[in-house]
Amino acid sequence: MADEPALSAGIAFAPAEASAVVARRRVIGWGGAGVVLGATAGGSAVAAVRSDNGTRTAAAAGEAVAFHGTHQAGIVTPVQDRLHFAAFDITTDDRDEIVRLLKDWTAAARLMAEGRPVGEGAVGGLAEAPPDDTGEALGLQPSRLTLTVGFGPGLFSRLGLSRPEALVDLPKFPGDALDTRRSGGDLCVQACADDPQVAVHAIRNLARIGFGKVAVRWSQLGFGKTSSTTPEAQTPRNLMGFKDGTHNVAGSDRAAQSKHVWVAQKDGPAWMAGGSYLVARRIRMHIETWDRTSLKEQEDVFGRTKGEGAPIGRKRERDTPDFRAMKADAHVRLAHPDNSGATILRRGYSFTDGTDGLGRLEAGLFFLAYQRDVRSGFISLQKQLAKHDALNEYIQHVGSAVFAVPPGVSGSDDWWGRTLFETAEGA
Amino acid sequence: MADEPALSAGIAFAPAEASAVVARRRVIGWGGAGVVLGATAGGSAVAAVRSDNGTRTAAAAGEAVAFHGTHQAGIVTPVQDRLHFAAFDITTDDRDEIVRLLKDWTAAARLMAEGRPVGEGAVGGLAEAPPDDTGEALGLQPSRLTLTVGFGPGLFSRLGLSRPEALVDLPKFPGDALDTRRSGGDLCVQACADDPQVAVHAIRNLARIGFGKVAVRWSQLGFGKTSSTTPEAQTPRNLMGFKDGTHNVAGSDRAAQSKHVWVAQKDGPAWMAGGSYLVARRIRMHIETWDRTSLKEQEDVFGRTKGEGAPIGRKRERDTPDFRAMKADAHVRLAHPDNSGATILRRGYSFTDGTDGLGRLEAGLFFLAYQRDVRSGFISLQKQLAKHDALNEYIQHVGSAVFAVPPGVSGSDDWWGRTLFETAEGA
Repeated sequence: MADEPALSAGIAFAPAEASAVVARRRVIGWGGAGVVLGATAGGSAVAAVRSDNGTRTAAAAGEAVAFHGTHQAGIVTPVQDRLHFAAFDITTDDRDEIVRLLKDWTAAARLMAEGRPVGEGAVGGLAEAPPDDTGEALGLQPSRLTLTVGFGPGLFSRLGLSRPEALVDLPKFPGDALDTRRSGGDLCVQACADDPQVAVHAIRNLARIGFGKVAVRWSQLGFGKTSSTTPEAQTPRNLMGFKDGTHNVAGSDRAAQSKHVWVAQKDGPAWMAGGSYLVARRIRMHIETWDRTSLKEQEDVFGRTKGEGAPIGRKRERDTPDFRAMKADAHVRLAHPDNSGATILRRGYSFTDGTDGLGRLEAGLFFLAYQRDVRSGFISLQKQLAKHDALNEYIQHVGSAVFAVPPGVSGSDDWWGRTLFETAEGA
Repeated sequence: MADEPALSAGIAFAPAEASAVVARRRVIGWGGAGVVLGATAGGSAVAAVRSDNGTRTAAAAGEAVAFHGTHQAGIVTPVQDRLHFAAFDITTDDRDEIVRLLKDWTAAARLMAEGRPVGEGAVGGLAEAPPDDTGEALGLQPSRLTLTVGFGPGLFSRLGLSRPEALVDLPKFPGDALDTRRSGGDLCVQACADDPQVAVHAIRNLARIGFGKVAVRWSQLGFGKTSSTTPEAQTPRNLMGFKDGTHNVAGSDRAAQSKHVWVAQKDGPAWMAGGSYLVARRIRMHIETWDRTSLKEQEDVFGRTKGEGAPIGRKRERDTPDFRAMKADAHVRLAHPDNSGATILRRGYSFTDGTDGLGRLEAGLFFLAYQRDVRSGFISLQKQLAKHDALNEYIQHVGSAVFAVPPGVSGSDDWWGRTLFETAEGA
């Protein structure tokens, strides 16, 4: 954050909505002219960030992404550069405690999305208490931080809530080698930002707020976004050196989103309307084997050329694939919506977690997909891929989780999960 | 890399130096207009990047940093945003094989520093062979990539070379809890870049080139640079939320570098003149404990205010510390050059490697320090800190390595380590 609050171009201010936030947590004033935050110290100027029609406004790197809206930010938001994803176990059976947590998380997330620290942390009278904010993101820009919350199957069973029918357990797919320590979770938070320190800071502060109610089960850092929700941008390359996910759902394509991403009122349950279902898969790549594979084999496996990323037999990346020109087990051929019938919104990231015990790169794709229904989305797609995809020789699914992602937070008096916990359906 | 080769403003071309590179590895031409690299396919236009006086030229994010020079790049170069560091074990006793490797690594590093792929990888006639470059950085900018090579103690013993006297084994310091799987190494490569995919790509391709001669022993990713070599820039915060390393050696301060960073001819051995010694320490932070510590205790531990980063009792970050105002065991007081007498150049990065088995953030500081002599540098400093530093309650050193970093590569016919392997001293 620079000397001035970084509420930048393209973000609409709505001061009327700010009072509830301010009542709960005063804007802090860190000592030192360089980091005085907010317009008035102790102040009244926390601006709720929301565009007039509830949609996300485009934000350049460094800027803030609107937190309030019909849908949660971080789904159709143009993909940021970095990811910190955390899955939590719930450690209490007390529903009220989880409601309290979700309200606290929402308030903290709202501030962090604006590039502000969490809560009061004044250098003065509170010196004997731990700072409310851990501090390592002070002085950094909002960096387009989005925080997206999801509810795992365990949340519903543990708190005695009705689990959405569409939140199914994934079947065991052929080739799965899932590590339970990297799978599952009762709650998840996806933090995306253009600065990794901002994403890490956000997860850390939410984990800290959750102390005694939730504990981190596993977490994953990602970089090098592997999908794009902006069709005009170049599709990024994965760690195999290929462009993949060319025909992703675009952030601007509302028709496709309504059809494939957002849960509709009629889908049920009512509290999920405007939400989505998230599948997370940690996919390890056998990098060293892949790197010793011939270019022709690599291109046959993907069904694309490596340089341009064109479908085999075509010239340019976005040319219509000619499936007859590809091998039957080519990845593009099997994964293409025209074949599997599954359209999902992908927000995957590459990961590299150092080296395994054998000197091999511990690296791959952390696959994140949002869809209206997991059964017609990921499961339908993965059934095909797990059986036939030529890529399976070079990858292995080692982590898996599924979450119901509730709708967005509509304003400063709203909070993540309110539609679930405050309705009869949630009872 | 964009459509045009990204040899940008501030970089001097020296085509006369390019011939040796070109003779060894032709510029590749990936299919597709968007990624045709180099001025002429199969071409003669690989420009050696070097400024006239051998020093690094300033490069904006995305640009290339000069590879050739008196010193290796990546030491006094303005600190880039991301790190991938790898330590290798040598798996051969054949000195010629290691010479061959270092020549190949130099050639590859020279290309990657310019944002070019490694070697030939044409889509045409070589389809039956693995691509020379793994491809995931195609289309990305040079991103100020620097690659810096160091020689560990094992290289000298394994290949029967005289080990520099100053390359001492570090003593065991009080509190050390070193994991041998994250310590040591016969060779190291430090890759720094503003894009993590570029840094990861570089290490991966060097590891690949080294197959059969070296194997990755351990590696570390870093983000959120915690030191700055540009004194005019704000000192970045570490994961404890504090500014640390305010009085680092500046990239522009040649007097301090000559005195504290670069090995002089008279120091010996002669082949190390222009080189430096690198100490790497993986320092785990007990983040959760720290986060529950009062602001006053945190500030007492560091000897700085958290907001501004001013020494206790002073107003601004760069004010001269008043040691009498601090506790005797304050980190700044013990680490300050005025007290320990040790001035080192720091290039540390924060790391977050997910979560440990107990749900705690596996995070901390990957400390990298360059110095003229390890004995008067890191050892002198750490002897003080390990005994007395109040910070020790919240951190633990869990990995350690030391390397002799040879001088820079002077031109296209030079290679990393030539001064060692081609002189009598090396024999």
